[in-house]
Amino acid sequence: MTNKKLKVGIVGGTGYTGVELLRLLSIHPGVELTAITSRGDAGLPVADMFPSLRGYVNLKFTDPAQSNLTECDVVFFATPHGVAMSQAQELLDTNVKVIDLAADFRLQDTAVFEKWYKMPHSCPNVLKKAVYGIPELYREQIKSAQVIGNPGCYPTTVLLGLAPLLEQGLIDFTAPIIADSKSGVSGAGRKAEVATLFAESSDNMKAYGVSGHRHHPEIHAQLMQLAGENVQFIFVPHLIPMIRGMLSTIYVKLSAKAKTLDLQSMFEQRYQHERFVDVLPAGVLPETRSVRGSNQIRIALHKQDEAGYLTLIVVQDNLVKGAAGQAVQNMNIMFDLAENTGLEVVPLLP
Amino acid sequence: MTNKKLKVGIVGGTGYTGVELLRLLSIHPGVELTAITSRGDAGLPVADMFPSLRGYVNLKFTDPAQSNLTECDVVFFATPHGVAMSQAQELLDTNVKVIDLAADFRLQDTAVFEKWYKMPHSCPNVLKKAVYGIPELYREQIKSAQVIGNPGCYPTTVLLGLAPLLEQGLIDFTAPIIADSKSGVSGAGRKAEVATLFAESSDNMKAYGVSGHRHHPEIHAQLMQLAGENVQFIFVPHLIPMIRGMLSTIYVKLSAKAKTLDLQSMFEQRYQHERFVDVLPAGVLPETRSVRGSNQIRIALHKQDEAGYLTLIVVQDNLVKGAAGQAVQNMNIMFDLAENTGLEVVPLLP
Amino acid sequence: MTNKKLKVGIVGGTGYTGVELLRLLSIHPGVELTAITSRGDAGLPVADMFPSLRGYVNLKFTDPAQSNLTECDVVFFATPHGVAMSQAQELLDTNVKVIDLAADFRLQDTAVFEKWYKMPHSCPNVLKKAVYGIPELYREQIKSAQVIGNPGCYPTTVLLGLAPLLEQGLIDFTAPIIADSKSGVSGAGRKAEVATLFAESSDNMKAYGVSGHRHHPEIHAQLMQLAGENVQFIFVPHLIPMIRGMLSTIYVKLSAKAKTLDLQSMFEQRYQHERFVDVLPAGVLPETRSVRGSNQIRIALHKQDEAGYLTLIVVQDNLVKGAAGQAVQNMNIMFDLAENTGLEVVPLLP
Amino acid sequence: MTNKKLKVGIVGGTGYTGVELLRLLSIHPGVELTAITSRGDAGLPVADMFPSLRGYVNLKFTDPAQSNLTECDVVFFATPHGVAMSQAQELLDTNVKVIDLAADFRLQDTAVFEKWYKMPHSCPNVLKKAVYGIPELYREQIKSAQVIGNPGCYPTTVLLGLAPLLEQGLIDFTAPIIADSKSGVSGAGRKAEVATLFAESSDNMKAYGVSGHRHHPEIHAQLMQLAGENVQFIFVPHLIPMIRGMLSTIYVKLSAKAKTLDLQSMFEQRYQHERFVDVLPAGVLPETRSVRGSNQIRIALHKQDEAGYLTLIVVQDNLVKGAAGQAVQNMNIMFDLAENTGLEVVPLLP
Repeated sequence: MTNKKLKVGIVGGTGYTGVELLRLLSIHPGVELTAITSRGDAGLPVADMFPSLRGYVNLKFTDPAQSNLTECDVVFFATPHGVAMSQAQELLDTNVKVIDLAADFRLQDTAVFEKWYKMPHSCPNVLKKAVYGIPELYREQIKSAQVIGNPGCYPTTVLLGLAPLLEQGLIDFTAPIIADSKSGVSGAGRKAEVATLFAESSDNMKAYGVSGHRHHPEIHAQLMQLAGENVQFIFVPHLIPMIRGMLSTIYVKLSAKAKTLDLQSMFEQRYQHERFVDVLPAGVLPETRSVRGSNQIRIALHKQDEAGYLTLIVVQDNLVKGAAGQAVQNMNIMFDLAENTGLEVVPLLP
Repeated sequence: MTNKKLKVGIVGGTGYTGVELLRLLSIHPGVELTAITSRGDAGLPVADMFPSLRGYVNLKFTDPAQSNLTECDVVFFATPHGVAMSQAQELLDTNVKVIDLAADFRLQDTAVFEKWYKMPHSCPNVLKKAVYGIPELYREQIKSAQVIGNPGCYPTTVLLGLAPLLEQGLIDFTAPIIADSKSGVSGAGRKAEVATLFAESSDNMKAYGVSGHRHHPEIHAQLMQLAGENVQFIFVPHLIPMIRGMLSTIYVKLSAKAKTLDLQSMFEQRYQHERFVDVLPAGVLPETRSVRGSNQIRIALHKQDEAGYLTLIVVQDNLVKGAAGQAVQNMNIMFDLAENTGLEVVPLLP
Repeated sequence: MTNKKLKVGIVGGTGYTGVELLRLLSIHPGVELTAITSRGDAGLPVADMFPSLRGYVNLKFTDPAQSNLTECDVVFFATPHGVAMSQAQELLDTNVKVIDLAADFRLQDTAVFEKWYKMPHSCPNVLKKAVYGIPELYREQIKSAQVIGNPGCYPTTVLLGLAPLLEQGLIDFTAPIIADSKSGVSGAGRKAEVATLFAESSDNMKAYGVSGHRHHPEIHAQLMQLAGENVQFIFVPHLIPMIRGMLSTIYVKLSAKAKTLDLQSMFEQRYQHERFVDVLPAGVLPETRSVRGSNQIRIALHKQDEAGYLTLIVVQDNLVKGAAGQAVQNMNIMFDLAENTGLEVVPLLP
Repeated sequence: MTNKKLKVGIVGGTGYTGVELLRLLSIHPGVELTAITSRGDAGLPVADMFPSLRGYVNLKFTDPAQSNLTECDVVFFATPHGVAMSQAQELLDTNVKVIDLAADFRLQDTAVFEKWYKMPHSCPNVLKKAVYGIPELYREQIKSAQVIGNPGCYPTTVLLGLAPLLEQGLIDFTAPIIADSKSGVSGAGRKAEVATLFAESSDNMKAYGVSGHRHHPEIHAQLMQLAGENVQFIFVPHLIPMIRGMLSTIYVKLSAKAKTLDLQSMFEQRYQHERFVDVLPAGVLPETRSVRGSNQIRIALHKQDEAGYLTLIVVQDNLVKGAAGQAVQNMNIMFDLAENTGLEVVPLLP
């Protein structure tokens, strides 16, 4: 760790991942916020848009064209899909590291990217160097990465839930892996839409994206990477009337060997040195509020003996471990800071 | 009451007052829904937009230009301010009655209308004939009205709360009347806006419009009408994280005479024959959910003896008695139907 | 249908299924509410506890011992498990029909009952005659039943979702049936508990009962009954921060034959004459609010072609089709009333 | 500030103010948590009850009788009313400072205490020494206090809103001061009750305590203390469906002098050095979420020129500045720590 503070820029600070980065970075002891850009709101004090930041962030939004992002050490993109890939090369050329919270650098297969995001990938060279930013899976690569594709919110829950099984080859792939995931409404972003109005989504729930959600190919690619073989994967996301919070219930068929193992202990060992992954004691089930505002992810497992299945239940705050918190965790690793720097926020309960 | 069903048209059926009219009218025994217009969604089955109406409403939205509204007996305008006044004269000319749920026919003073709604009033002749649609105050005029200005949601609570005092001259007007009102988020309408997103307005509340809300002049004009003299009026609305429901807490200084009266009995007598106004027993306070989905309004009163004030607490469902339900009540009166026809919906609790 | 109104009693009217029965029955044209019992609140006017019923229910709670239930035509038990079985025989002896909304008459295997409900079954003779009250599956038996075991809330969604497949033998039972179900908090009942406080369960969600929920054996028994063979069944319920509403996402492996069929059409045909079962058009997904306050159940299906699975999404209001509404539907059938009498309540949206 | 960490005990750690103290103190750099007592849950790891604290609090609840509270430097009472006054003397005798979050040391007039809390005050000698714990009003006395009566949640909003006016004599007391206050449900505490169940208090609101709330005499006494004369005070609290958050709308009649002043500037100057009091710019209104989880209080003011009134709108997190956060602020002052130590938590938005 150096004494000099990192100069940090945020492109697109007006959405939920943007304000969440600001919440975390404004009190991060190793960081100096240098620039926060917004095309539409340039000139506006950040704290006028987000009064929660009054007294913590004194910057104004600046126009992207006039922001000296190239003077930063690292730039976060909290922008719509497609923005980071148009600007990454220029930043890398001036030795600025890039962490993209959108999808530009998550999918190594550009054909898959183009199918799901309906745009050409303009930057395959940078993509090749990008590391998928789940520290608990790819920490070594993150250390030396110049570009991070920060994962989608759903994938982090599913992948950290399944990793111990995949790494040990304990899943019987003759049955599909099923992830039934539930997300708070902030996952839909801070954009004016009828469907996510309070009067539409409160006291109400629904499944969505059943015929195809963008996180399906992202998770699927990672599952096959970790499994080393073909995997069937069914993914059904649901919208839940809570602001933050995500819970994935995952159903997998266990291999013959897995049925004989103490999976609880195996999970506990796998994650024993991970500050942000908490394997709950046997029989304890997690609530989403137990991680509200924090970078924790909590995992519970339950063997369905008769059916030979394992049920995994994984919770996280979709805006923290599912987005901005994990991005900061990645930054800490990339710059050799203690991984939990600025991330020791006790969950807000109640 | 005639045996022939009323032909009813709704202009602008895609907002919350529109869908609420549909909920009530689709099972109203004296009504045949004839046309529901929407400029943007013409051709779409109504039940595709509002699946709650599957099996109850089989109509499609029609383009306003192609809707034979002149063949209706009555047309409701569930449109933005300014639409009804541009179409009312044509309908009246063909003997169609008009009930406007927007503000076009609420304020008799066009200068006040133009100041608050930022548009010229295009139809002052019709306005002169319009009746302000609170049946409990203006039933006789409603019976013979051709045009109803259906009240705003807030005014109904404040006016029905204060009417018994105003009618008897029991308020000391040396102090202002203060109405501290609270509304569910559906009051903001079904339009795409960041401020009323679930993630913005859930687990949160605020005052708004403190420096001037459009319902202030509407209430103020009615207060002075009922009082027969000048009245000071302070109005502060608040946005509350609930879908429906409105509660107004009203503070008035009692006249010397009022302090000696049994106001509880007086209120009970004033409203004893009103099906939709419920004066709660002394000491009982109302909850908004006790009227959820229904046309009831409930009133509680409490004397603040030491200060010589009366506190009134009034609840209604802002979309029913505060909008669509009251509009249907007005229609029933205008067409000589029993006033509660189609409105005997038991509140949904829990 | 006779002209004479049915005399109806409700035992245990102070919980959510009780007040929901009151909401529906108070405006049911074929019913006269005769007695509502409550041990703890005898003497209290019902509308004092539930102000939503002011003007609709004028009865007081009566002590069970002093309620002339034997003079009723039918008695609903909205009581804790174990009450109905202690009183049913006496009622049947006086020719009163019984509809139990608790679990006493749902499980034909008393050993299973005793395992899950931790009490002996005191009334196996009556149990033998009891019919499981899902009209869409057992209408003929319900017509002549003396005793109805009204289903649990979760089972109705899972069973009506799967019935068309089970009846046609279209499921491959080498894989377990998985039901990932989500319920609003009213499903936990109206009892003082920390876990279901607003401050505990709002902005929060969790899975519960993973190691064994009482509705598992109930659903399991019915699945096997409908399948005619052994079935593996995994059931994970979740608590969602909404008052009412239930959504079950069901994952089944299709048989070889099923993969070749137009399941959408098959479902539509199966339920085409069922007033309360709505198969949504292909590609449309249901929201829980689309049935809020109503007896509707809505079903969507989506083939997961690659995996050879079918995903079913089923919504209902847990207090209506999941409890009180279905009970009234059963009553209508038992007494030869039109099945939808008193149940044509348009869902409350927003 | 000393290098040695303060030894801190918490009596009654199982309620919301208890867990909130734990959230704040567990990462307070100047504090060592020494004992957390609970009569009912002795032996249970604190993090088993509150999983949000896993990794932050490793203590178990201990029985009060076996907790060496006398070895602490300071003990917080997060207990029901009446507990602190029974234990305070013993702690003071061993030089332990006491901060009571209940009402035992808030009201100097024991007759008033006994009237409102229905119990005799057992400890008037300690009460005499107690300081009312609002630092922005009584900082000097807090510095040397042995016992703090930490204010109720409502009083902090009303008193900090009105203090600048009261201190300068700018209120016309011929009219009553009216405080219309709104609180999130956590204010009712973490106890099993029907009224605060999710299914009862969600999508719903109500006024309560209109005929007399315990915070009325507390606020009233302080108002008269600050005013130096008799004051009429009307207080109506409301229950709002949000977990945390409190908003008070206050209506006061301005003195002739006040009408001529720039009150906005006056408020800004009064609080310019107060870290936790934020006077919003003219025209900006506060939302409760802008302080969620933080010790900030935000104030807006609006002159009602015509009526000669001032409307104040004040927000805080009822569990932080309204309870545990203010208690920690008091502790910091008592032990000469920087006043914001451990309290620089950025509000959680969204």
